[in-house]
Amino acid sequence: MRDVAVIGVGIQTWGELWEKSLRDLFVESALNAMKDAGVDRIDSMYVGCMSSGLFTGQEHLASLLADYLGVNPAPAARVESACCSGGLAFRMGFMDVASGMSDIVLVGGVEKMTDVDGAAATYALATASDQEYEAYNGITFPGLYALIARAHMQKYGTTREQMAQVAVKNHENGSTNPHAQYPFKVTLEQVLNATMVADPIRLLDCSPITDGAAAAVLVPLEMAKKMSKGPVIKVAGSGHATDTIALHSRKDITFINSTAVAAEKAYKMAGVGPKDIDFAEVHDCFTIAEICVTEALGFFEKGRGGKAVEAGKTAIGGEIPVNPSGGLKAKGHPVGATGVAQIHEVVNQLRGACGKRQIKNAKRGLAQNMGGTGGSSLVHILEVV
Amino acid sequence: MRDVAVIGVGIQTWGELWEKSLRDLFVESALNAMKDAGVDRIDSMYVGCMSSGLFTGQEHLASLLADYLGVNPAPAARVESACCSGGLAFRMGFMDVASGMSDIVLVGGVEKMTDVDGAAATYALATASDQEYEAYNGITFPGLYALIARAHMQKYGTTREQMAQVAVKNHENGSTNPHAQYPFKVTLEQVLNATMVADPIRLLDCSPITDGAAAAVLVPLEMAKKMSKGPVIKVAGSGHATDTIALHSRKDITFINSTAVAAEKAYKMAGVGPKDIDFAEVHDCFTIAEICVTEALGFFEKGRGGKAVEAGKTAIGGEIPVNPSGGLKAKGHPVGATGVAQIHEVVNQLRGACGKRQIKNAKRGLAQNMGGTGGSSLVHILEVV
Repeated sequence: MRDVAVIGVGIQTWGELWEKSLRDLFVESALNAMKDAGVDRIDSMYVGCMSSGLFTGQEHLASLLADYLGVNPAPAARVESACCSGGLAFRMGFMDVASGMSDIVLVGGVEKMTDVDGAAATYALATASDQEYEAYNGITFPGLYALIARAHMQKYGTTREQMAQVAVKNHENGSTNPHAQYPFKVTLEQVLNATMVADPIRLLDCSPITDGAAAAVLVPLEMAKKMSKGPVIKVAGSGHATDTIALHSRKDITFINSTAVAAEKAYKMAGVGPKDIDFAEVHDCFTIAEICVTEALGFFEKGRGGKAVEAGKTAIGGEIPVNPSGGLKAKGHPVGATGVAQIHEVVNQLRGACGKRQIKNAKRGLAQNMGGTGGSSLVHILEVV
Repeated sequence: MRDVAVIGVGIQTWGELWEKSLRDLFVESALNAMKDAGVDRIDSMYVGCMSSGLFTGQEHLASLLADYLGVNPAPAARVESACCSGGLAFRMGFMDVASGMSDIVLVGGVEKMTDVDGAAATYALATASDQEYEAYNGITFPGLYALIARAHMQKYGTTREQMAQVAVKNHENGSTNPHAQYPFKVTLEQVLNATMVADPIRLLDCSPITDGAAAAVLVPLEMAKKMSKGPVIKVAGSGHATDTIALHSRKDITFINSTAVAAEKAYKMAGVGPKDIDFAEVHDCFTIAEICVTEALGFFEKGRGGKAVEAGKTAIGGEIPVNPSGGLKAKGHPVGATGVAQIHEVVNQLRGACGKRQIKNAKRGLAQNMGGTGGSSLVHILEVV
């Protein structure tokens, strides 16, 4: 396998973008990534999208987007793994370059979620759970994560305040991110008193519904060394794993096993461990998710994720900064795009291009993206070489 | 890149399978393929499925199926490219093994189409066309292929009888296929007088709506040489290409350019040309599609596909047998499964295991799978080594 590098990333400001279509969003971010990379052609592309069928009535998505991007007849594949479709697209692009099949690969993620009403969006998102055993019985994702939160609170003594601290930290980080949907700060009191959604999860514990896209350009490392003007950023590790998508089939719902297995593979490929990671972008679809994920990634022992955020260990300037971008919480969560947007942030941190939210001496970053309640996870490690 | 081989294939008898769920269908064919391959583990899997979201309200599909197959936490990815999602899954599996990432890869395709009524199925299928410019204006796939048929008739003098001959031949072939949804013969008169759907396309020019799955197991060629009891079957070529998904944007709607480009790549990788292919499974979603595809693959000159089928050149025993399995026409067309089922037939032909529909001295076969009206195409060449 060849070594692979990221030479360009692109995004736009996310939000309720009613004036832009699914194809507009993707093409805009893809062109930004190609411009950033300094390439005017691609050999192959991958599109992560969870449910363009239910959100916009459009399948056969990758061909459509390849055509609108102007790269037809290049091969283009859509991949889906619920909310980690973007991370999966990145892994497919990595594999395509690593195998020697393609030299310049565009990886994108996109979701247009606000063309349907709230009930239809909730239905579409619930298709990431087990349709026959979970969704059919009426539970949706805030309810599923509420079960995880209750179990974590009971087993480890995690508190509402610790969960709320995740939202406070991520909004603090995201308040200076020009691409964030909600670039403002929130107080602990605001989070604790927000509208109840599914006890103990309140409105400000939830990531929002968002329109958006993100893209990255991958090439062989040797090519990147010749092309890059700034730091050369290698994809040092890639891990992918699954779990039951239904919560009731798991031994311990407080532990995201798919993330732990994917991380183990990524660490092994990169030849590093959790202590060698300078910062991470992780999947905080709900505040409790970030707490569970920081434990599954090995940053903290099982049950210590809540205490870690409370102690400021995951803040910028802390022991292991988590979600400097603002995370899904502040940046927004267009589900198929999220995994690629994490790569966008990791690359810009490694370039030292993040302004007020820049992490000092960031040389190795990790991106963790997951589907549903952790039925699938992707972990990637990027480093400056 | 490592050489890759197919060591096992699996399927079930297709049809309106109301007693089997989406997950049942996939697991059944996957277990058949693993049994055929003689493996009891897999390192990674790919699932081709067009629209489990619209057909069954289930996304996050690959994780669900990996769990039901009992291979959790193995990496599992769903890929989508409309009606060639199965062919795309096969290519991803090929790339995964070729890259060295995985040794034993399961590739499957599945679609459960009859849990919704006819109107909902037609809506779901229409999402493979351009939603904003085609589907929104009311045209569905029989109408789009009717436009192609009319253009082919006008440009090349192709006749209704030649199109009908495709259905007669494929039902003749499929009449002895134990996995076919419609294993019976039809006469030229029956096809010509069937219920009109979209002039000149009649009911027996159309492939059906089907529930079904198919699977294949891929390993490095060197491993296959040690494991295979019968002929060792190498994936000699893989090609993938796209086109506009909207017909109105193409220069010539009678020519399937994505298939021509994908075939060119597959021929180049395999070091062969159209004359070196012993037989082919192609995407006859409508009878006119088979005619266009045999031209795009280079078996016949542009405009000669109709005359070729009329002259018996594509029959078993002809110059280049096409769709010995019965094709989508007789075998059925569970859209995401079709591309993998083509591989199932090619492998069994190369093994000499096809009974009455066996092609003599079949040493090199081609599978061509496409999405929509050719907005995407996959071409694979398999050969006995």
